[in-house]
Amino acid sequence: MTDTLSDSDLDLIFREARSMNGWQDREVTEEQIHAIYELAKMGPTSANQQPGRFVWCKSKQSKERLAKCASEGNQDKILTAPVCVIIGYDLDFHEHLPWLFPHTDAKSWFEGDEEGRREHAFRNSALQGAYLMLAARSLGLDCGPMSGFDQDATTKEFFADQPRYRADWLCSIGYGDRTTIFERSPRPDFDRFNQLI
Amino acid sequence: MTDTLSDSDLDLIFREARSMNGWQDREVTEEQIHAIYELAKMGPTSANQQPGRFVWCKSKQSKERLAKCASEGNQDKILTAPVCVIIGYDLDFHEHLPWLFPHTDAKSWFEGDEEGRREHAFRNSALQGAYLMLAARSLGLDCGPMSGFDQDATTKEFFADQPRYRADWLCSIGYGDRTTIFERSPRPDFDRFNQLI
Repeated sequence: MTDTLSDSDLDLIFREARSMNGWQDREVTEEQIHAIYELAKMGPTSANQQPGRFVWCKSKQSKERLAKCASEGNQDKILTAPVCVIIGYDLDFHEHLPWLFPHTDAKSWFEGDEEGRREHAFRNSALQGAYLMLAARSLGLDCGPMSGFDQDATTKEFFADQPRYRADWLCSIGYGDRTTIFERSPRPDFDRFNQLI
Repeated sequence: MTDTLSDSDLDLIFREARSMNGWQDREVTEEQIHAIYELAKMGPTSANQQPGRFVWCKSKQSKERLAKCASEGNQDKILTAPVCVIIGYDLDFHEHLPWLFPHTDAKSWFEGDEEGRREHAFRNSALQGAYLMLAARSLGLDCGPMSGFDQDATTKEFFADQPRYRADWLCSIGYGDRTTIFERSPRPDFDRFNQLI
C-alpha cells in the first residue's frame, strides 16, 4: 500500500477534475458502475448506516424518464450522459442496522425519531454521493452533479415501490467533453472559511 | 496526469482506510491542514456554494472546549487526536455567490428561501466534509468522523461571532492507531441498495 497519492493522482481526483456539462459518445459499462459502487461503499457513514439508495439510469428510456423530472437546463446533461445516477436515501435505514452494525443495538437509537433519521439519512447519503464521485474519478471517469430537478416527482417516478426512499440529487457520469465547461469558479483561501485554533 | 488510480492508491483512500478510534502521538502540522483544505476545496458544490465552515481544533485548549460538547464516548477521540475539525455550514452562504459563482446572479436564487438555503448548505457542506476526509487519506492521514455531540452547544461555543453558522459533525484527523479499531462492518452488495435500469 502506498503512503500518499502522487501529485498526478491528486490532479486526477481533485485539482484538474471538473464538473462536466457535456459528454463524449463513449459507454460506461455495467462493470464500471459496479466498480464505482464497490469503492464508494467502503467510505465511512455514521454507524455504517449506508442510507444511500442509488438508481443508475443507463438505458435511453430511464434517462428520458429522469430528464422529464429535471430543470430544462439539466435535461440534456442527463440525456447525453452514458449514465446518470439518482442519489437517494432511505428514511428507514435503521431497519438494516442489525446487520450493518451488528455489534450493538444501533437500530434502537433511531426508533421513533423520524426527524433524527431524516437528518442522518440526508447527511450520510450526501457523503456516499461524494465517495461515488471521487470513486468515479479514480477510475478515470468524469462527473456532472446536479440539484436542479424535482425531488418529489423523481421520488414518485423511481421509488414508487419504496415509500420511505427519497431522491436527493443527481450525478451524470461518463467521459466528459472538455469543450463544454466554463472557466473554473474561484476557490476560497484557507483563511476565508476556516479557523485553526 | 494519470488516467486512473492504482490498486494500492484505491486501497489507501477507499478499501483499506478505516475510521480510527485512537491515535498515535504524532503531530499533524499546520501545513498538512492547509494541504488538506487546498485539495478539498477543489471538489464540486452546487453553484460553487462552498457553504462549509471549518474549525480545526489543534491546541489542547480548543480540543478541551470541543470535547465538552461531545458525547462521553467521543471525548477521548477528540482529546487524543492531533486535530479535530468541526464541519459546519453557513445558512447565508448565498451572500458569497457573487464572487464564488460570478457568471450569473445565483444569489437571487436563494434570497428569501431560508429552507432551501438550509438544505443546500447541509447537503453541500457534507460533500465538502467527504472531500476533506478523502483528501486527508490521500495525504497519508487517517480520519475518525463523529456525529455524537451537541450541535447547538458546539455552534454556541465556536461560532458565537457568526450567528448564521451551524456546527454539523466532527472529524478527528491524524495517524491512527490500528489496535483501536474493530472488525470492519459489513458492506452491502450492489443489488441490495442499487438499481441499474
